[in-house]
This record gives sequence, structure tokens and C-alpha cells, in this order.
Amino acid sequence: MTLPPRATIIEVGPRDGLQIEKQPIPTEAKVRLVDLLTAAGVPRIEVTSFVHPRHVPQMADAEEVLARIQRRPGTKYEALVPNARGIERALTCRVDRIVLFVAASEGFNQKNLRAGREEMLQAAREAARMAREARLPMRGGVVTAFGCPYEGRVPLEAVERVAGEYLELGCEEVTLADTVGVTNPAAVRRMLEHLKGRFPGARFGLHFHNTRGAGLANVLAGLEAGAESFDASAGGMGGCPFAPRASGNIATEDTVNMLHEMGIETGIGLPGLLQAVALAESLLGRQLPGQLLHAGIMNWDAPAA
Amino acid sequence: MTLPPRATIIEVGPRDGLQIEKQPIPTEAKVRLVDLLTAAGVPRIEVTSFVHPRHVPQMADAEEVLARIQRRPGTKYEALVPNARGIERALTCRVDRIVLFVAASEGFNQKNLRAGREEMLQAAREAARMAREARLPMRGGVVTAFGCPYEGRVPLEAVERVAGEYLELGCEEVTLADTVGVTNPAAVRRMLEHLKGRFPGARFGLHFHNTRGAGLANVLAGLEAGAESFDASAGGMGGCPFAPRASGNIATEDTVNMLHEMGIETGIGLPGLLQAVALAESLLGRQLPGQLLHAGIMNWDAPAA
Repeated sequence: MTLPPRATIIEVGPRDGLQIEKQPIPTEAKVRLVDLLTAAGVPRIEVTSFVHPRHVPQMADAEEVLARIQRRPGTKYEALVPNARGIERALTCRVDRIVLFVAASEGFNQKNLRAGREEMLQAAREAARMAREARLPMRGGVVTAFGCPYEGRVPLEAVERVAGEYLELGCEEVTLADTVGVTNPAAVRRMLEHLKGRFPGARFGLHFHNTRGAGLANVLAGLEAGAESFDASAGGMGGCPFAPRASGNIATEDTVNMLHEMGIETGIGLPGLLQAVALAESLLGRQLPGQLLHAGIMNWDAPAA
Repeated sequence: MTLPPRATIIEVGPRDGLQIEKQPIPTEAKVRLVDLLTAAGVPRIEVTSFVHPRHVPQMADAEEVLARIQRRPGTKYEALVPNARGIERALTCRVDRIVLFVAASEGFNQKNLRAGREEMLQAAREAARMAREARLPMRGGVVTAFGCPYEGRVPLEAVERVAGEYLELGCEEVTLADTVGVTNPAAVRRMLEHLKGRFPGARFGLHFHNTRGAGLANVLAGLEAGAESFDASAGGMGGCPFAPRASGNIATEDTVNMLHEMGIETGIGLPGLLQAVALAESLLGRQLPGQLLHAGIMNWDAPAA
């Protein structure tokens, strides 16, 4: 087991966690959530997305959230952007990095992203051109990299194709997303070994959902195979509110706790992070899947009992 | 990542999962649960325990459960036994293997097992002598091997001491238990490397609780470090009913699903196992932490959507 001394956590709760909530969440509450995450020392936060408000009404206040958050120098604020129109909006705000996204599988692009893969890639190319002109750093998200709800297995070549495009477009990092939470540690390792062989020197991130409980095992495999960043959401927000615990992102606090216990630094303070998780639970009005808030941080030197 | 082609799952739900339930569960229901687990092809089931009924009233029907379950040749039926009186009771039943238990930390023995470590070890020695005379196979459980709620860190030497006793007593296997769910993959690996160096040729099993979400990551580390068996409970039963999801065992179905997806055989059929999980949820009247029942088994060849 070769483990790195540190890993980068990207908090995606304010975007991936909240976007599926039907109930509108007040802008003020979103700002408070981001501010608590900033205060906890989270190094990168995916704050919002510039998608069409008709498709994701919860993110319609993207500009306002970005205008009102309190920034600290140690934190970078990212936003998801699907196309040129999204970049136009992002350029009116202070955004440190944009996140492009295209699914590796044709079915997911068609059914969930409302465009074929080539059309999605073309939109990403246009957005990337504008971002480069504005010197805005980019990362590229490969959606359904480990499996598609419509097509099942996704060939490595399809993932390689999208990852290669991103690197050509100037993305600093490619994030491989297990969008529906079906992957396993062996597949994560195979994927990273393949892509690192194909694109030497490229930086890879991972985006896992804990749908079938293997989220942190996949993180461990990713760490061992050289992934550098891990998307996670406070409390494990995300997924379907009608199937509690069925498909949220991996919980930031459980991920950070495991890494810290292994001696891997994240720069994040757990007590502060748990404040953000508690706020998320109160905003959404339900217990979230993340476990650390309820189990408690183990104090090795002065155990609770 | 060196992974074995197969791993042994020991279902402990009927014992570790049910023992904390305040509401008495009818013997008939326990028998049905074990029968469904048997039918699913689970190779080893910890059916019950021969502890004093005053301490664990839920297990008072141990003899009756063992008398009524339907046995299949592919499954071994185990029972937890603390002392000579427990063995006397076990010897009146058909039990394929007994499980001894002693905590590595003095505080846990004193406060939760009602005897000091030396007294617990002495009771295990007596029980083991009687089991050997009856040619009853044994495994030894090292409770609080990875951390104690009262003492925090547990020295490797304390674990080694108990493990060494078990091996001298003739246990076929030593199971290291993270009783309160505080460990991490790096600690699991260190522990196994240490003990395998100290006791060459000994077989080790692991018993994890998913208290802080790292359960399956710990399984992965254990697989890589040469552990041969993994305790798990259907649905992730166990822990405190007043803190949902706070400290159950790792869920058998999520563990088996991850192993199968990685190409590691268990001999267990997932659809049958999910029937046992559904029964467990209906018996306990609540959704259990295991996720596969609700997320569904991924059908790679014919995806659901």
C-alpha cells in the first residue's frame, strides 16, 4: 500500500448535493453552507453550476451565491459549466476554476444531459476556448466513467476519448465520475492505471457516490493508484430524496476522517466540517448518510467513555 | 493490489446483529433468518451465543434456534461461547465451531464483559479445553483489537497476547474485531503485517463495524494484507437502535457485492441474500444501513433504465 502524505478534497455538496432538492433552498442558506466549509479549511468548493435554470432550478441563484460568499485565500471556488452560455455567466462572477462535464456513455448524454456525446464535447470545446481566453483554470468531469444506468459497461476507450479531449483543451485535471455508484476498487485501479499509462503526467481526480457502500474503499484504491483529488459532499448529500441513502456522494466528513486516521493530510478541520454537516441536515430537514456527525470523532487520547 | 480469488464471509447478524435488540424476536423468526442465509449459500453463520440469559436475554433461545434451523452441507453453524458453562450448553446442540472472545483492552473486559482480561482468558482456556476434548473446532475473537471506547489506543502487544493465547489453545483462526468502528485501512494493514510476522501460518479474520463509513475500505485493506475471513451482518444489523446507522456491522450484502464486482468469489448468491436482508428489515421494523437492497444489484448486461 503506497499512500500519499496528502490528498485534496473537493467539496461538491453545494452543487451536486443540493441540485436535486425539489424544495428551493434560500440563497442565504447556501452562502452560510459555503462559508462554514471555507471556515473548516476545505481547499476547493464546487459552489454552484451555470446550467439553464429550467433544467436545474435550484442553481438559478449561481451569481448571487458567488457574490455573497466570504472568501479566504486558502480556498478555491469552482463552478460547473456545460457550455458557452455558462461561461458567459461565470465570467461575470469571481470563479477560480470551472468544471466541464460530458458523459462517457452516449445514453447518459442523450437521456440526462439532453445532447449527444459529440454535441456535449463541442459545447465543452467552445466553453474551454472562452475559459482559456479569460485565463480561467479548468477541470473536466467524465460522467458515467465507471458504468452507465442505460448502457451498463462503459468501454475504457470511451473514457479515454473524453479524458483526452479535456487534456487537449487545457484542463489541469480530469475527474472520473462514478455517477451511479456502481464501481469497485479493482475497476478504479484498472481505470487509473490505464489512463495514467495513456496520458503520462496528467492529474486525475475521482468522484464517487456511496450508492452500494463501497465509496471509501474506492477512495482507498484511488489513493493507492495515484488519484490526487476526491469529490465529496458534506453529509453525503445528493442522490434521490425519495430513496434515503441510496445514492449520495461520499460524505466529506467520513472521507476526511478516514484519511486523517491513516495519516493523510487534507488541511480540513473536522469539528468545523461537522458544523457544515449539521447545517446541511437542518437545511434539508433529514438525517444525511454521513456517519461521523452521529458516531462522533474518536478522541484517541481521551476516549468518551 | 494483490487480491485473493476468494474470501470467506461469516454472517454474524443472527448473533451480533440481533443481540442488542430490546424487543424479543420470536425464535421462529430467527430460524427463518438463518434458513434464508443458508439458502443463499453463506458458508459460515454465527447463529447464536451461549452467554448468560440475564446478560443477553435475546440469545436465551440458543438451543432452540440450533435445534430448528435447516442445515445444508455447504454451511457451518457457529456459536459464541464465553466460558465452560457456555460450552456445556453448546455440547448439547449441533454446533460446527465455537467462537471464544476476550477483549484486548482491560477497560472493555471490565466494563462490558464483567471480568478482567486474565479472568476472561482463564474462562476461554477452560472452554477451549472442553471444546478440544469434544473435537469442536474453535475460532478466537479479539474484541477491541483496533481501539477501545474506554482506553483509546490498544497496544499491538495486547492484541498479540490474546491472539497468541488463542493459537496455543488450538483455535483455527483468530478474528480481530474493531468493536467500536474506529479503525482505518492503514491500521488494519499494520496489525495484520505485525501478527502474521509474529505467528507465521496463522489464519486471521476481521470483524468490522461501519460506524464511521470506512468498513469496506477496511475490508479491502484486510484482503490485500492476507485476512481470510470477514464477519458481516445482513443489512448491517447491530449497533444501537437509538442511533440509526451509527454502529452496525458491515452489511453482508454490500460486502459480497463489492467482492463479486472485484472478481472475488464468496459462494453466496446475492438475490437470496437480499431476501434475508428484507426479512431482517421487516423483523426489526426499520430500514437497515445496508444499501444494496435499496440501490439494487447492478445488472451490467441489461441495465435497469
